[in-house]
Amino acid sequence: MDTRPVNLFDYEPLAQARMEPDAWNYFQSGSDDEVTLRENRAAFERIRLRPRVLVDVSACDTTTTVLGTPIAAPIMVSPSAFHCLAHPEGECATAAGTGAAGALMVASTSSTRSMEEIAAAASGPLWFQLYVHDRPRTQALVERAARAGYRALVVTVDAPYWGHKERSIRMGFALPPTMRKANFIDSPPIDADPSMTWETIDWLRSITSLPIVLKGILTGEDAELAMRHHVAGIVVSNHGGRQLDGSVSSIDALPEVVEAVGSRVEVYIDSGIRRGTDVLKALALGARAALLCRPILWALAADGAHGVEQAIGLLRKELGLAMALSGRPTIADIDCSLIR
Amino acid sequence: MDTRPVNLFDYEPLAQARMEPDAWNYFQSGSDDEVTLRENRAAFERIRLRPRVLVDVSACDTTTTVLGTPIAAPIMVSPSAFHCLAHPEGECATAAGTGAAGALMVASTSSTRSMEEIAAAASGPLWFQLYVHDRPRTQALVERAARAGYRALVVTVDAPYWGHKERSIRMGFALPPTMRKANFIDSPPIDADPSMTWETIDWLRSITSLPIVLKGILTGEDAELAMRHHVAGIVVSNHGGRQLDGSVSSIDALPEVVEAVGSRVEVYIDSGIRRGTDVLKALALGARAALLCRPILWALAADGAHGVEQAIGLLRKELGLAMALSGRPTIADIDCSLIR
Amino acid sequence: MDTRPVNLFDYEPLAQARMEPDAWNYFQSGSDDEVTLRENRAAFERIRLRPRVLVDVSACDTTTTVLGTPIAAPIMVSPSAFHCLAHPEGECATAAGTGAAGALMVASTSSTRSMEEIAAAASGPLWFQLYVHDRPRTQALVERAARAGYRALVVTVDAPYWGHKERSIRMGFALPPTMRKANFIDSPPIDADPSMTWETIDWLRSITSLPIVLKGILTGEDAELAMRHHVAGIVVSNHGGRQLDGSVSSIDALPEVVEAVGSRVEVYIDSGIRRGTDVLKALALGARAALLCRPILWALAADGAHGVEQAIGLLRKELGLAMALSGRPTIADIDCSLIR
Amino acid sequence: MDTRPVNLFDYEPLAQARMEPDAWNYFQSGSDDEVTLRENRAAFERIRLRPRVLVDVSACDTTTTVLGTPIAAPIMVSPSAFHCLAHPEGECATAAGTGAAGALMVASTSSTRSMEEIAAAASGPLWFQLYVHDRPRTQALVERAARAGYRALVVTVDAPYWGHKERSIRMGFALPPTMRKANFIDSPPIDADPSMTWETIDWLRSITSLPIVLKGILTGEDAELAMRHHVAGIVVSNHGGRQLDGSVSSIDALPEVVEAVGSRVEVYIDSGIRRGTDVLKALALGARAALLCRPILWALAADGAHGVEQAIGLLRKELGLAMALSGRPTIADIDCSLIR
Repeated sequence: MDTRPVNLFDYEPLAQARMEPDAWNYFQSGSDDEVTLRENRAAFERIRLRPRVLVDVSACDTTTTVLGTPIAAPIMVSPSAFHCLAHPEGECATAAGTGAAGALMVASTSSTRSMEEIAAAASGPLWFQLYVHDRPRTQALVERAARAGYRALVVTVDAPYWGHKERSIRMGFALPPTMRKANFIDSPPIDADPSMTWETIDWLRSITSLPIVLKGILTGEDAELAMRHHVAGIVVSNHGGRQLDGSVSSIDALPEVVEAVGSRVEVYIDSGIRRGTDVLKALALGARAALLCRPILWALAADGAHGVEQAIGLLRKELGLAMALSGRPTIADIDCSLIR
Repeated sequence: MDTRPVNLFDYEPLAQARMEPDAWNYFQSGSDDEVTLRENRAAFERIRLRPRVLVDVSACDTTTTVLGTPIAAPIMVSPSAFHCLAHPEGECATAAGTGAAGALMVASTSSTRSMEEIAAAASGPLWFQLYVHDRPRTQALVERAARAGYRALVVTVDAPYWGHKERSIRMGFALPPTMRKANFIDSPPIDADPSMTWETIDWLRSITSLPIVLKGILTGEDAELAMRHHVAGIVVSNHGGRQLDGSVSSIDALPEVVEAVGSRVEVYIDSGIRRGTDVLKALALGARAALLCRPILWALAADGAHGVEQAIGLLRKELGLAMALSGRPTIADIDCSLIR
Repeated sequence: MDTRPVNLFDYEPLAQARMEPDAWNYFQSGSDDEVTLRENRAAFERIRLRPRVLVDVSACDTTTTVLGTPIAAPIMVSPSAFHCLAHPEGECATAAGTGAAGALMVASTSSTRSMEEIAAAASGPLWFQLYVHDRPRTQALVERAARAGYRALVVTVDAPYWGHKERSIRMGFALPPTMRKANFIDSPPIDADPSMTWETIDWLRSITSLPIVLKGILTGEDAELAMRHHVAGIVVSNHGGRQLDGSVSSIDALPEVVEAVGSRVEVYIDSGIRRGTDVLKALALGARAALLCRPILWALAADGAHGVEQAIGLLRKELGLAMALSGRPTIADIDCSLIR
Repeated sequence: MDTRPVNLFDYEPLAQARMEPDAWNYFQSGSDDEVTLRENRAAFERIRLRPRVLVDVSACDTTTTVLGTPIAAPIMVSPSAFHCLAHPEGECATAAGTGAAGALMVASTSSTRSMEEIAAAASGPLWFQLYVHDRPRTQALVERAARAGYRALVVTVDAPYWGHKERSIRMGFALPPTMRKANFIDSPPIDADPSMTWETIDWLRSITSLPIVLKGILTGEDAELAMRHHVAGIVVSNHGGRQLDGSVSSIDALPEVVEAVGSRVEVYIDSGIRRGTDVLKALALGARAALLCRPILWALAADGAHGVEQAIGLLRKELGLAMALSGRPTIADIDCSLIR
């Protein structure tokens, strides 16, 4: 029996075996009854594909761009906190593995390596996930990100407070004393800000030339507002089922966001991506790319940078095969006629 | 592992461990095959939310009013019989805990403490649940309730007879000899009356100035009739799945009742409320407030008045968080656009 | 713990404990994968009721008539073969118990007591279920039925061959040597006839003045044909999931049959009735009465005539309670507005 | 307890007991999460039948023709590789058993007996399944097939690459050294070709007078293209859930293919056929015949040619019974009014 990972799910038990139970539960938990956590997978599994045949797929091409940056496949690494819980090298290993796989990583404000360390370890393009709080400190963070070579800001908009991750609460998770939010040394960490509004986005746009992507939009109404506030992109996300339990799955919310946005900006998706066919379904419904979160943490825990590279590589291969088997040799060939 | 209750479900095993099996089954049982009992939860879980973002939710306000009475959150305590089965102080403890949590309690005709004792123990507003039977005794009850400071009458209209609670029937439940229906000393208790009609409601209205709320309506037709008979409010309820098995869940029945009523009177809901997001969903579909039943009994059994206060507090916190995470900082902001 | 049956399901394990495994499997088995057998229950459980309130239900009346014969409730006993497998007195006990409960029994051609013995034992009205085969022998059967006082003929039309009851086939069921089809002594038993057509119905009508009811119709088209051939009634049935597996459940087929028939003749239903609310749902969708099959066999095996009487009594009580709890005090009050 | 197979499912454990685990998993596995593998069965089970009654079904006739060839029932044997994994006589046994049952076998390019050996062993009509690769070798194969008496070419169009059969991958399946693709001696085997297009079909048509059937079409669009390229038939198939996971089930795709094709060519179906009622449903939705795959391999492993003959015979009997019980005595009587 070959025990190397065959798919992304295979990293899950490997990671669990290597991690502390409280950290494991912190990563895995959804909020409340985890209805949305489960629905994120169920919604992908409900979608039925209509493959086409007798198309020349001898040379399938998964490459694409996001905000103009070329990537090997429409696959990115979603921001998440505290990678050192999974692996001693933390986000530096994630960045190295992501770049080696030709993908783009979105580094979290709450990383356990500083954004400069991550940038130094990275071999591929980076975006910076931002929590906005008091403006002077936020501005300092943004300027550091720009200096360190991050190409876009991904502003999390669905976390004015933290969802109630009960599995984690029962465990009593706290960051081990040997770890810290490495982007903050002289000041307390910036965290979610419940008073943030669209005006905050305007202010952010006024202080930086980096493109701004909003992460956590689930409605056409908010997508329309995002257009009015001139953002560069949207990540349709329910935060991996960790915020409002009962929220619509991201893949079910995608069409209304895409319809509201049209071709004005790029729309991405996270929350529940595990298979190449999930990426294919997301693209067919209008996404530009899909972001992976928990599977990256699993692969990082299982095998560090190499694990991350392998996991992204597996997903890219699955996507390439799914494109071939559905008669869509290029990303541009993937459209909604693929969905039943 | 922290073992304090994290949510309302956590009170259930604590209560079961403290209660006699026959009393426990009396509280827990639904009627017949418990299809409606299960559906009450399933229907809430099927509803998908559409959260909005970038709204200032730094100061969420859960306060509201019911029939003009301010309460800390749109959460009330539903009437249920025999609280002494759960805790020696019975309804007095429930009333004390409910008031301490800023909520309103509906005391049952079939309480094991008298309505006057309950009123004396209460620190918050009270309504009185009424079974209507022979008119002189009913009128006496109503007058006592008014004198004791109860602010409204909640007339149960879905119990001309008792549903067949088979779990309880198999156990052979009977009220222990040390307990009794404390509102009745000189006369036999008033119970469900199968001959009650809309005319009974008219009569009731003629003998009291207390507002009358009907509990147990599940159709638009009956909501329309309730308007013609000038009631002050409606509780959409299937009696916690304890009456007609196969009845529609209360949350699925809510929209047609709300549509029939419009803004003429307040509509409340019970049967299946366990989460802050359930309250949020009920309000989005037009309810003014939600009533809790079994979770209150669980908390009462687990920890008396303090348990009741804590349980209502937990639900209120969940509601506040759900309002923040859905971008609805006040009760007035919650509307049907929140529902997919 | 009280162990007397509380509902019809309770008779099932009692019967299994008393019966030979091969006979038990013969009664219980559905055809093929038992998809229709399961669907018969699932379809009833999917239906949601809309109870009305504040109707005077102090005197609910379950009485009705079928083809002009008064019965205590819209509940009849469906024909089934070989009651002696369940109880030594066989169909005689069934008839005695059914009559004692105020119900009507349809005796099977394949009974293990003769139709004359059954009629002698019966205390209530009887109909005779008929398999049509060669005409002289069929005519003789019909004449005997009329002489013995049977008031209608129920012609089974869904059994040109026997469905593949695999549980039973694996067991190798055969009628014990001590039992036989008691209606046949000098000639081989009449069984299903695959060449029967509508013309056969016309012939049958020509030789008897007994009203003819067709059992096993599941489509509006056949209901329309039945009208053209002047039958007196229709039993919507899939033979308890024992004939064509994958057939629509009888309760889902009922509306199209009722729509085709209008008020011209009575429509009955069997297959899956276990609860008073099932009868209520069937009546709301247009049935005149519901027929019970397996629960009668269970009750017969459990406790003979007394068991049958008790089981029908339980169901009648459940129906009465369901009528009261849905605000329908008489059979005539039950209409489709009860169904969501 | 009789242990002879009662239905096709019964062959599954018999086969598993006789086969090497890696070969077993190779046959059984679907791709990825096996969503489509499960859906192939679930989709059949969801379909509800509307049987008609009082039709003379004393002489049901399952015979039909495919491309003009008479067969005993609308049942064929789908092409699959490596029958020697199931039984030492491999495809020769399959062909003998299939012919004995009056059915037609589609022999695979990847057979472990050569097409000439299979033809010699066959007692019934044969078609040849073709993978198209470099044209000279493909043409040689086609000419051999014509010479050996194969009556049609079935071109697999859904396998430009192999789906990711993970159960099999984990097992590390490889063809045992004692077996080989017997159609190829001097040259490497022809396998899936990812560059194949509709032009390839045109070329194939130019080099042979054998009718060409495309296997693996799931959309109306491709069915329309197939018409333009003058094929003789279409097999609606998702390759038994072994190619693109998440693909629509074949029975759910059938109606749109039938609608696109009209009566121009014959449409067949495979993927998930296990019951006579499945064949009945497929025909009701417009298929000319259904192809069996895994059940044939199970029966072959369980009992060689005799097993194959018995299995097809069982299915034919089931179909005949299903036709009788649905009031459709001939294949021509089966239409879409049978489906709810």
